[in-house]
Amino acid sequence: MEKKRIYMDYSATTPVKKEVVDEMLPYFSEGFGNASSFYDYGHEAKAALEKARERVASLINAEPAEVFFTAGGSESDNWAIKGAAFELQRKGKGNHIITSKIEHHAVLHTCEYLEKNFGFEVTYLDVDEDGKVNPEDVRKAIKDNTILITIMFANNEIGTIEPIEEIAKVAKENKILFHTDAVQAAGNIPIDVKAMGIDMMSMSSHKIYGPKGIGALYIRKGVKIDNLVHGGAQEKRRRAGTENIPAIVGYGKAAELAKENLENHISELTRKRNRLIEGILEKVPYTKINGSLEDRLPGNVNFSFEFIEGEGILLLLNHFGISASSGSACTSGSLDPSHVLLSIGLPHEIAHGSLRLTVGDFTTDEDIEYIIETLPGIIERLRSMSPLYEAAMNK
Amino acid sequence: MEKKRIYMDYSATTPVKKEVVDEMLPYFSEGFGNASSFYDYGHEAKAALEKARERVASLINAEPAEVFFTAGGSESDNWAIKGAAFELQRKGKGNHIITSKIEHHAVLHTCEYLEKNFGFEVTYLDVDEDGKVNPEDVRKAIKDNTILITIMFANNEIGTIEPIEEIAKVAKENKILFHTDAVQAAGNIPIDVKAMGIDMMSMSSHKIYGPKGIGALYIRKGVKIDNLVHGGAQEKRRRAGTENIPAIVGYGKAAELAKENLENHISELTRKRNRLIEGILEKVPYTKINGSLEDRLPGNVNFSFEFIEGEGILLLLNHFGISASSGSACTSGSLDPSHVLLSIGLPHEIAHGSLRLTVGDFTTDEDIEYIIETLPGIIERLRSMSPLYEAAMNK
Repeated sequence: MEKKRIYMDYSATTPVKKEVVDEMLPYFSEGFGNASSFYDYGHEAKAALEKARERVASLINAEPAEVFFTAGGSESDNWAIKGAAFELQRKGKGNHIITSKIEHHAVLHTCEYLEKNFGFEVTYLDVDEDGKVNPEDVRKAIKDNTILITIMFANNEIGTIEPIEEIAKVAKENKILFHTDAVQAAGNIPIDVKAMGIDMMSMSSHKIYGPKGIGALYIRKGVKIDNLVHGGAQEKRRRAGTENIPAIVGYGKAAELAKENLENHISELTRKRNRLIEGILEKVPYTKINGSLEDRLPGNVNFSFEFIEGEGILLLLNHFGISASSGSACTSGSLDPSHVLLSIGLPHEIAHGSLRLTVGDFTTDEDIEYIIETLPGIIERLRSMSPLYEAAMNK
Repeated sequence: MEKKRIYMDYSATTPVKKEVVDEMLPYFSEGFGNASSFYDYGHEAKAALEKARERVASLINAEPAEVFFTAGGSESDNWAIKGAAFELQRKGKGNHIITSKIEHHAVLHTCEYLEKNFGFEVTYLDVDEDGKVNPEDVRKAIKDNTILITIMFANNEIGTIEPIEEIAKVAKENKILFHTDAVQAAGNIPIDVKAMGIDMMSMSSHKIYGPKGIGALYIRKGVKIDNLVHGGAQEKRRRAGTENIPAIVGYGKAAELAKENLENHISELTRKRNRLIEGILEKVPYTKINGSLEDRLPGNVNFSFEFIEGEGILLLLNHFGISASSGSACTSGSLDPSHVLLSIGLPHEIAHGSLRLTVGDFTTDEDIEYIIETLPGIIERLRSMSPLYEAAMNK
């Protein structure tokens, strides 16, 4: 019998949708030309590139000329933050950056690098117990030398959606550049960069059923930042490297599908997510749901189960064919509990027992019911072996 | 009748070989897991990743642990140069970089950026009329504050292969880090990083029949450089971003094929290239072949045709179904003649009339004969309209 496989880690990465792969395929071996070339092969590649750019721009209500393709969300974050920091420091505008304690590591480690090696000063804002940044805290953190505010659109671990429009307003009132890491948000919830007043925004394809290795940075017209990858004249001389046409075409298709399906995507994922949360909370005592219940990514579920370790839960879930994660996939290899869970006030021991299950477009109602049947037994089994649990029960 | 299409721009980019696409396909929608994850989907991705790393390492006689995947050659160049420069400057080792005037823009523009904005000093070495860097010139350029020597393995426009082993020896004798941009070389000619004493080497997949958007940086064990893309713990914490498994798998397969076929690849391309050079030189007067005839990439042909413009040649070649380029694809959008052709001593007017035709694995003998039949007429037609030609003929 083939092992049951239920994928519940859509926030880590998504399978590429069939329509997306189909649209990519002709560009590997036939329409493979270099888009910066002169001949017919190149013209065809160039046309495909610009069509994809329009589709990605349309997803976030940007102009196509404001969308620059990168190799993914991490590169976009690095580019936006280092590019703005170096450009504005050099122009004598200041060296202070405001961010939050729950950003993705692509933002946090970039800020730390600038702080440690290039004389920047970074304020890492606290968040509330739901993981929300208070726009008033942003306002209070602003100083004369503040050059950049970078706050994520939605958190990858706990799903909390930040008050981006309000934060962007604070930035604008103080004439400070505003960047947001929307890797989890763009394509999963509605975003309008113009209406929201966003200056720069990082996006990724493989979180929305497009291929890996491709993403984009939205840079509002008129915003100048240093390049991260210098070289050829691609992407209007702002990001060098032969254009990755098959991946760009795939990202464009994924963005188009995301836009078309957005309403249904949100309602379906929210319904399944809510059922999963209710089902588990009803059956498993000493359980906390992390992150905001109101302002939450449609597919995100993040539990803390007291008295046990997330790693044990993952191992047993995998045994039952369920793929999930504990915190962010990017923190694997580290023994520290998630910086996000610590920042929302969880004690170390509870942060250790957390589990992220993310619902996606291929998750069925049966999958959800199977998890609701399976997970409580796993938690019970692990707790039965836990001295912490025994001690608490005997108190 | 379908238009004849003869692709002669393999140095710009190559079609992905069928075996490569076939090996990539399962990783888009089935084995799509995040390689840094904990569950079976992730394990499968991780295994594919490490297999590809071994294949790429094997192509250049490196250890797998010395190969770090990037989004392509430009990123690899930027990472190696900025990473070494920032790390060594910070440690007080110096701020002087030695490179050549004929490097790819990913190297030149990176050096210029460091020079302009971060207090580095860069020596751009002259080359001889074949485009060769003299190792003695490298030695003479070394100063107390020299921290990095970066010289390309083979030139993308004129195909000249540099004396890398000798230059690496000079670097080693002076305890200076040595990087080489081998984007055109790795997979097209034999490279042994250990025997050659290379510290860092940039490579690309789409120049050797692998997918675009993926490349690697070889970093010799023990060499420390700053990261370019900060964030998650991927690639042993040295290059952040979800691993691009399908592309990495494709690159691994392309590297394996390149290694297996190397001898035949070199002899076939060299034979066809030589026939093309002879055929054209015999039929077209006032023509110069650029680059070294002895130490030359197997597939490279680069002519200068006096009295005419490269752009006109490309347009007419395209009309006859032949895809070629004038200088580097990356310089398109600029009216300046190639920096490489000027550096080997061509006057502006002759550099303007140059044409690069690159032979690849799918080029047939019939293609070569068709070009030998077609190109002389194109040159003649363009010269008949050229006042420069008329003036020269009436002298």
